Amino acid sequence: MTTSSGDTVLDRVLRILSAFDARRRQLSVADLAHVTDIPLATAYRLVSKLSAEDILTRYPDGTIGLGMRLWELAARSSPAVSLRTAAMPFLDDVQAIFRQHTQLSVLDDNEVLVVERLSSRNSVVNQATVATRMPIHTVSMGLVQLAFQPPHVIDDYFLAHANAAKMTYPSSGSITTTLAQIRREGFSMLDGMLDDGTTGAAVPVFNTLRGKNRTAIAAISVVVPEDFEQRAAVIPVLMAASRGLARALHPIPETE
Amino acid sequence: MTTSSGDTVLDRVLRILSAFDARRRQLSVADLAHVTDIPLATAYRLVSKLSAEDILTRYPDGTIGLGMRLWELAARSSPAVSLRTAAMPFLDDVQAIFRQHTQLSVLDDNEVLVVERLSSRNSVVNQATVATRMPIHTVSMGLVQLAFQPPHVIDDYFLAHANAAKMTYPSSGSITTTLAQIRREGFSMLDGMLDDGTTGAAVPVFNTLRGKNRTAIAAISVVVPEDFEQRAAVIPVLMAASRGLARALHPIPETE
Repeated sequence: MTTSSGDTVLDRVLRILSAFDARRRQLSVADLAHVTDIPLATAYRLVSKLSAEDILTRYPDGTIGLGMRLWELAARSSPAVSLRTAAMPFLDDVQAIFRQHTQLSVLDDNEVLVVERLSSRNSVVNQATVATRMPIHTVSMGLVQLAFQPPHVIDDYFLAHANAAKMTYPSSGSITTTLAQIRREGFSMLDGMLDDGTTGAAVPVFNTLRGKNRTAIAAISVVVPEDFEQRAAVIPVLMAASRGLARALHPIPETE
Repeated sequence: MTTSSGDTVLDRVLRILSAFDARRRQLSVADLAHVTDIPLATAYRLVSKLSAEDILTRYPDGTIGLGMRLWELAARSSPAVSLRTAAMPFLDDVQAIFRQHTQLSVLDDNEVLVVERLSSRNSVVNQATVATRMPIHTVSMGLVQLAFQPPHVIDDYFLAHANAAKMTYPSSGSITTTLAQIRREGFSMLDGMLDDGTTGAAVPVFNTLRGKNRTAIAAISVVVPEDFEQRAAVIPVLMAASRGLARALHPIPETE
């Protein structure tokens, strides 16, 4: 199952699937072979097999793209999809109230992964931002989740990302101060971190509605203009959405 | 690359991925080997490789489920995702107006495949219905798409599904009459086909806004109670959403 170059078939299939993204949805087999560093004849053979299974699809112009079956397999049972499904009504509420980009994200492999992004009718439909990854310490949706991880996870992150310790944040200073502030206040709101004039605001979605050692399993966040007139309402609305989602994911008897 | 049983590695990987669905999100390796008819030792080896790539994930109790990477690969560039992304604001509008199950579906491999389903806060969140497949001739969202296919596609469907020709529909009789009526009226509305007391209503999303030989590339549909008080508004609202989506997908100069 291992080829002379040491690649397994599986390695090569994964390289082929990873070659496509939102900006590169279609490739010729020759380009695909080049990008994935797979011999052309092998590329043709794998593309043919994967197309027969609808994992890849052939367009009329001869180029290749991802097929419907990959999405179907993932959509049926991936953890991202069930979280997204549960979150959708709450994201929808936030988006309806503010009419600004509303996002659901998780931590995965020491990065923030955007699972869903709702944009208002008037904003650019930016498909590339779903399934985008970003460094955790650069965005509010990353920081709120990192702040509510067990201490050893936070330590591991600093070990793996030396530059995180050197980051400074607009109002709160160092990352340690910032994480402590997030743990105290329950949210993160950062001005102008990614783009001038925009503010990222995020709250954690907890694994349980109560308890001291709660862990964040996701974040709900919005990107709004820095001078957003509803600024004071942003965090309360995100918190309401987050509590609603946590309750939907972990129903508990309401006996207080 | 072919094993003694004639399976390729790829066949086996696809059988493993297909073993999971919304009702069966986690399996032990032994159960997975059984369900997929793969020898246990091979199953362990493949699970280990796929887990290393985050295509599968191991849960603390030792069971296996689909990993985040599969979703991520599909979400980045699958055609279903880009259609869904473009459609989301329009589905959202329909759902906000009627507060009933709103669906986006496509035809794939002679079946209807549900790409998105928005449910109201008070309805059951039914994850299983995303990525569900149904026979085309049994649901309004299938019929509206079949009606607007090139004649040879319709012929092929009847050849492959002998029982479709025998179907009768509540108001319109045979499937040929029904398809003709849909082509004339531009929508399908079926009472009590799937469940007593419910009505399925669907309109096609066309590949172009105008023209005689338009083809349906998707359908937008709702499931409402049969005595729904806003019944008269259902088709006009769906048509507005469908036109909006077609325009978003195929921008044309508005020079009429």
